[in-house]
Amino acid sequence: MTGTKGAMTSARLAESMLELIQRNGYSGTGLNTVVEHSGAPKGSLYFHFPQGKEALGEKAVELAAARFGSLVADSALESGSASGSASASATPGEVVRRVIDTLAGMLTDSDFQLGCPVSVVTLEMGARSERLRDACANAFESWIGPVAEYLVAHGRPRPDARATATAVVSMVEGAVIVSRAQRSTEPLRCAARALAVLLDEGDKGDEGTEASA
Amino acid sequence: MTGTKGAMTSARLAESMLELIQRNGYSGTGLNTVVEHSGAPKGSLYFHFPQGKEALGEKAVELAAARFGSLVADSALESGSASGSASASATPGEVVRRVIDTLAGMLTDSDFQLGCPVSVVTLEMGARSERLRDACANAFESWIGPVAEYLVAHGRPRPDARATATAVVSMVEGAVIVSRAQRSTEPLRCAARALAVLLDEGDKGDEGTEASA
Repeated sequence: MTGTKGAMTSARLAESMLELIQRNGYSGTGLNTVVEHSGAPKGSLYFHFPQGKEALGEKAVELAAARFGSLVADSALESGSASGSASASATPGEVVRRVIDTLAGMLTDSDFQLGCPVSVVTLEMGARSERLRDACANAFESWIGPVAEYLVAHGRPRPDARATATAVVSMVEGAVIVSRAQRSTEPLRCAARALAVLLDEGDKGDEGTEASA
Repeated sequence: MTGTKGAMTSARLAESMLELIQRNGYSGTGLNTVVEHSGAPKGSLYFHFPQGKEALGEKAVELAAARFGSLVADSALESGSASGSASASATPGEVVRRVIDTLAGMLTDSDFQLGCPVSVVTLEMGARSERLRDACANAFESWIGPVAEYLVAHGRPRPDARATATAVVSMVEGAVIVSRAQRSTEPLRCAARALAVLLDEGDKGDEGTEASA
């Protein structure tokens, strides 16, 4: 049971937890609902996650971190040369716009029902679970670090790249929330536009004054 | 009981709901805890909020909207002339930095235990309560609108001002969350710095390349 089948059950439970957190938050997600949603056998939850909901939540946050990390990396690679090096074929602002376009698509596909699981777990559990808060801090760091490295590869000095990458992640997080509340991808589009100004300072003349209506 | 005393009880309940949502989210806040926290008599909750938790949550979101709106307005006024007009004594980027400094102080004062109630209610309840989602959308709009007007008063064309204001609100929301997860005001400082670049394009030369370490 700890073999392939066990690993698949464990992954399915984490997957369901992730999706339900995105929809209803952490406190609003009951473990029975997770088991039902996953289709896993009833006893499997405490077999795979003997520490219960907190451990499952941590796994879901890690899964979200990895998934969004891949999305960002793929967008950066697609924009680079075939070898994946930091070519000049797309600017950092264009890469961010591609990531935001994907997020906007996910949001509309879900009828604005899915938010970022890392944000909501931070806000609900940051004061109550060091383990979950830590998982969320690591998730944010797993996005900020590579974005900073990418900006360094595109010529930003390191401290500036780190600060800018942190701002990029904050802006995207916030824009997902405002978009979800307003049931509109407009806040995400505003974020993409502002980040293009911030990241592509050279191309700023056009972007900075362009109307978004 | 619907007089001054009743209004005070109602306000106290909404105040407690707001503080508890900021700490533990909406689903994680039980109504008994709200009544206890407020010190209000047990029966008062359903007297003042006969529609229950959703109505109380809506009131808390409205309270949060008004309070943060005042904070932003005060920061803008302090930066203006004595008459409160949009004077040139502080740039929009400096005003935003003042707001963010205040938020950073609130976050450290609470030992990073308080987040934005509007974000967390959006993420937890957006899929389950149109009434709460709508309250959150209105809260965000109540911040975006005045910031846009402020930017128009400082010379931005209207569509650009609106888009920029939306990005400002998103950035601040996201930075509060990342700061809370990382137990550090650094993400808020990165947001202030990025928004200064975005808002004070003329002063950009210095700000844009300044290290934040």
